[in-house]
Amino acid sequence: MAHELIYMDNSATSPVDEEVLKEMLPYFNEKFGNASTLYRLGVDAKKALDKARQQVADLINADVDEITFTSGGTESDNMAIKGVALSEIQKATDKNPRNHIITTTIEHPAVLETCKFLEKFGFEVTYLPVDEDGLISLDDLENAIKESTILITIMHSNNEIGTIQPTKEIGEIARKHNVLFHSDAVQSAGKIPVDVKDQNIDILSLSGHKINGPKGIGAIYIKKGVRFEVFMHGGGQEKGLRSGTENMPGIVGLGKAAELARENLETRMQHNKEIRDALIEKVTSQIKDAYVNGSLEKRLPNNVHFRFSGIEGESLILRLDNEGIDGATGSACSTHDLKGSHVLAAIGVKPALSHGSLRLSIGPENSIDDVDYIVASIKKVVDYLRELSPLWDNETDEYIGDRFEKPLEDEDIDRY
Amino acid sequence: MAHELIYMDNSATSPVDEEVLKEMLPYFNEKFGNASTLYRLGVDAKKALDKARQQVADLINADVDEITFTSGGTESDNMAIKGVALSEIQKATDKNPRNHIITTTIEHPAVLETCKFLEKFGFEVTYLPVDEDGLISLDDLENAIKESTILITIMHSNNEIGTIQPTKEIGEIARKHNVLFHSDAVQSAGKIPVDVKDQNIDILSLSGHKINGPKGIGAIYIKKGVRFEVFMHGGGQEKGLRSGTENMPGIVGLGKAAELARENLETRMQHNKEIRDALIEKVTSQIKDAYVNGSLEKRLPNNVHFRFSGIEGESLILRLDNEGIDGATGSACSTHDLKGSHVLAAIGVKPALSHGSLRLSIGPENSIDDVDYIVASIKKVVDYLRELSPLWDNETDEYIGDRFEKPLEDEDIDRY
Repeated sequence: MAHELIYMDNSATSPVDEEVLKEMLPYFNEKFGNASTLYRLGVDAKKALDKARQQVADLINADVDEITFTSGGTESDNMAIKGVALSEIQKATDKNPRNHIITTTIEHPAVLETCKFLEKFGFEVTYLPVDEDGLISLDDLENAIKESTILITIMHSNNEIGTIQPTKEIGEIARKHNVLFHSDAVQSAGKIPVDVKDQNIDILSLSGHKINGPKGIGAIYIKKGVRFEVFMHGGGQEKGLRSGTENMPGIVGLGKAAELARENLETRMQHNKEIRDALIEKVTSQIKDAYVNGSLEKRLPNNVHFRFSGIEGESLILRLDNEGIDGATGSACSTHDLKGSHVLAAIGVKPALSHGSLRLSIGPENSIDDVDYIVASIKKVVDYLRELSPLWDNETDEYIGDRFEKPLEDEDIDRY
Repeated sequence: MAHELIYMDNSATSPVDEEVLKEMLPYFNEKFGNASTLYRLGVDAKKALDKARQQVADLINADVDEITFTSGGTESDNMAIKGVALSEIQKATDKNPRNHIITTTIEHPAVLETCKFLEKFGFEVTYLPVDEDGLISLDDLENAIKESTILITIMHSNNEIGTIQPTKEIGEIARKHNVLFHSDAVQSAGKIPVDVKDQNIDILSLSGHKINGPKGIGAIYIKKGVRFEVFMHGGGQEKGLRSGTENMPGIVGLGKAAELARENLETRMQHNKEIRDALIEKVTSQIKDAYVNGSLEKRLPNNVHFRFSGIEGESLILRLDNEGIDGATGSACSTHDLKGSHVLAAIGVKPALSHGSLRLSIGPENSIDDVDYIVASIKKVVDYLRELSPLWDNETDEYIGDRFEKPLEDEDIDRY
């Protein structure tokens, strides 16, 4: 490898912080008790569980008993949407089927696939479009609400292009119409201020491994009083909301990661933003036909998402890996999906261009000192790939892919 | 504490084996890649995922691509039952509603609560009774099958009393009638031979933390060709069957634990059986009115389940904890449930007697050398508690609780 590894795929997953791992370790084989048991080993586990719950609650300004641990962001999203849907459908009448859900075209697959699943069973889903920055229109949202609407599920920020939605205003509209509001905050929690009270959020999903906590653990915030059908049935752990023996090392790790994220939020935001802005400035000025996908303003501080015309993202990722830089074409969840990003399609990026994308997601371990090396490496690889590309004219040094470009079709966006 | 801790609640949870933890550790912050990513860190994760899948497959004689990782036994049970139910219900016709499930009254709550949930949504569930040993009748099973039957879900062995069901014969009946057979093998896998091919199992649940692997990880075996509705929707991991970023440390840990369990199966069975039989022999001979719940013959080698008339289990557990012995009244999942065990009710143990139960579940770290100390401690505590008990006559040294005993009612068994 030409360089020590520069890991810039922190939105896919992130290494567990040393401090977090240290807190977790005793729970594997010293304090390994089952939190539902009566003896001291169990009571100690229960105390650790309560502490972690408070740490997670503090990160998002929730009350401690509004936090339930899950196996990750995906489970939290499934639990949120199915929980509300299956609860509300039991109140359906001939006059009001209580089966309408509003979401967006750029949600994470955990939300979109769950919605598609519910559609098979008689639910109706409205997928709101977004503008070229990746933002929804609040008017569209309000117009989409009808009597049968039971849930608005709109992500706090986007996992691919980092666009931050107007959560507070979405929540206001939801309350005004007496509709529940779920927000997938997997990419926001610990990265930007998330405040369920101020931002009018009823249900929120978050995940451990995106904030230097462990994989396989997440949490869901459910505002007091919200009715819920259980998703994971069983022994009645987590006050009956989520059964299964509590994953104590994971829970303790998520708690600690949440605490560290909260304590260091301002510092990390500043750190991330500095690297992000330097990358954007240098890449767009030094590389021809390099664009940034998504809003520049309403954007996660840790997210850069470039588009380079004439190249193919998979080759870009593999060649950058050879330079010691790990990034992504889109989200990890759609890496092996050849159809291209539904998010880029939704903001109007045509298929061939969409494939030339690069997401760099910044973490605490990245350094501003690496920016020049990263930019030089990207330039080197992009130049090389364009030289080989049938979509790039080496004579004129210009993109000629438009002539091969297919028009963007609804199915590119709506394939979920 | 009067004695170094003797942990005998391994059926509730077990400490992570040092070798298992050692395999897991690099995956927290060295090899921390997301298995869905393209660069080397991701490719390495994918390789580790494949290896662990093979290790789990080998434990139960499945093919490697028949194994899917989940967050634990509870999720596997939910996924199995809801997966089949929601798949089959889509084929329902007026003539055949395809909505009938057969289970038993002594299943784990992850199965029973899932069945109760499905009943709310129009499914019909038959709960087969068991005899005083905890065994179902194969005739009952066959008689319960009708045209609308889509699934038989019967546990491989019971989590409270350790009774092993005739899985092979159940599977034969299921195949004969073209009905799918799911078995919750959370307590069996790694403890007794589990062979999905020989035992005619179509779907099987297992868990990491019951076999000295980590908490928060489990697996489900789904026989090739079985149709399934997805339970956890999202990014399409695990071939679309179970979405969510792969919990790599957990998966690697489960793989290693499965390998160790398989390699040491015979030795551990012998070790457990020796301790179990010594405990049974000494407790029943040295303590008055001490009985064993469940079959003596068709019983997990690592399970002892005593019943002491005249005492209350919670006090027994807490006083044994003071003696340095950790055991359980029933399963960890029903510890805080004051209604008493549905399993003991199902085998005919009356409520007051049911409360005087003690489960000791044996693990590799237990030693035959501790048996005398354990028996002496139990005797000491039982004698003490009987002295205080209104259900015990100290003059005649006899149980007098029968006069206060309520008859066993259907709701004691059927409260699920």
